[in-house]
Amino acid sequence: MPEILTLYTAKVCPYAHRVELALAEAKANFKRFEIDLAAKPEWYAPKVNPASKVPAVAYGGPDVPADQPSSESTKIAESLVLLEFVADLYPSANLLPKDPVKRAQARFFIDAVSTKFNPTYFGYSVTGKSSQADLIKAFKDIQALLPETGYAVGEYSIADAAIIPFISRLFVGLENDLGLYAIGEGPKTLELIKTSPELKRIQQYIQDVTSRTSFVSTFDSEHIKEKAIKRYGNLNATRATSSQ
Amino acid sequence: MPEILTLYTAKVCPYAHRVELALAEAKANFKRFEIDLAAKPEWYAPKVNPASKVPAVAYGGPDVPADQPSSESTKIAESLVLLEFVADLYPSANLLPKDPVKRAQARFFIDAVSTKFNPTYFGYSVTGKSSQADLIKAFKDIQALLPETGYAVGEYSIADAAIIPFISRLFVGLENDLGLYAIGEGPKTLELIKTSPELKRIQQYIQDVTSRTSFVSTFDSEHIKEKAIKRYGNLNATRATSSQ
Ligand SMILES: N[C@@H](CCC(=O)N[C@@H](CS)C(=O)NCC(=O)O)C(=O)O
Ligand SMILES: N[C@@H](CCC(=O)N[C@@H](CS)C(=O)NCC(=O)O)C(=O)O
Repeated sequence: MPEILTLYTAKVCPYAHRVELALAEAKANFKRFEIDLAAKPEWYAPKVNPASKVPAVAYGGPDVPADQPSSESTKIAESLVLLEFVADLYPSANLLPKDPVKRAQARFFIDAVSTKFNPTYFGYSVTGKSSQADLIKAFKDIQALLPETGYAVGEYSIADAAIIPFISRLFVGLENDLGLYAIGEGPKTLELIKTSPELKRIQQYIQDVTSRTSFVSTFDSEHIKEKAIKRYGNLNATRATSSQ
Repeated sequence: MPEILTLYTAKVCPYAHRVELALAEAKANFKRFEIDLAAKPEWYAPKVNPASKVPAVAYGGPDVPADQPSSESTKIAESLVLLEFVADLYPSANLLPKDPVKRAQARFFIDAVSTKFNPTYFGYSVTGKSSQADLIKAFKDIQALLPETGYAVGEYSIADAAIIPFISRLFVGLENDLGLYAIGEGPKTLELIKTSPELKRIQQYIQDVTSRTSFVSTFDSEHIKEKAIKRYGNLNATRATSSQ
């Protein structure tokens, strides 16, 4: 029987969203505490996560208010560590398959998200170092890992929770043209990702993952859009205009 | 009962060494196939690992020679995925604790190795971007994660297999002054790491891990030294001389 679990999170953060998805899939009983990343509480770094990032979990110890963390609970950080932790805590949620080979495939998928997909997403949206073609290729490479139907390794798993927070935030950014690509390019890129016949399998996959209750109940696109406007809205002066 | 497992590996490679350690700890029955990284067999990328790196595993399928991999075996790559895979395949080897919190601590330790310790090691030895002080701090930060006695999370686990291949190769490099630091600095840095009273706990830890049979039977320091001489020996012209 799991002990008291408090999740320190922020709606805007894709890493934190991973853990919220896993907890929702596990139908876990937990306390959710929203951290305002623009004004983090002073107790957060010393008492919860010295790296001063979300997500973090306080697990066990006495039942204290989330903003008065106990020194008796264990503090755990890092989204991928926490995905495995939730899978371990709630084995009956089957957040990882039982078969060692399938578990390895889920973890390989997560590694590809961390080392290939996400760097390209950030390269396209945040630093301007990846092109639209790079981004499309990143989607194709993830698509190549998907089985013919279903989720990343068949049944829903932490692999799905690892990728979808990033894809969904990318889509909000593209739709609203918020990113370091040329002005006007965002919606065109989104259209391409959503309709290209070459991405049919991953289009279906994204549809499948985002229609689950775990996603619908944890994703606040308006909030994310507002935060993205604050971040990118004033960068327009530095951006080129889309050529087509 | 695990199926036939073939490990494609290279003695010189710290990532591959991780998996050899885990398999040795599990007393697993497996076929070891050495890949010459300077002359990789042409079948390796198409038939085993499209990324053309070691380590990789072929698991299951018919009992074929390692250099004629069957299309019926599952191919798995990425050292950290493979550490978890070995832990899953051989549960009685206890390569991860049973307690979810301790498992999370093992994975957090591994994350710190990947995202903090190793980049500093490479920064110091390979690119010249980290200073001696950065390296000492990296050892202190890992030390801070260790319990008072024993291994990374108490009993030996994949966390120990994740870090020691890098520390041991760093030591061979320092001892022989093979790296991009100033000429003559390597042995001094090694002396500091091995004798500084501030690093007492991690000195003991390194001693504990490297005296296990799993390490002794899988680490060929002469071979690694020779390869390092080939790699760095001719870089001396570009290196400064140690100032002290
Ligand atoms: N590697 C971490 C990354 C977490 C992260 O970068 N979180 C961001 C928000 S998305 C954060 O808290 N940044 C600190 C800040 O904004 O002050 C993980 O996977 O959990
Ligand atoms: N992320 C990989 C890295 C593996 C890796 O970089 N292996 C090197 C040798 S240490 C390799 O095979 N490089 C390809 C080559 O040398 O051609 C892992 O963790 O397994």
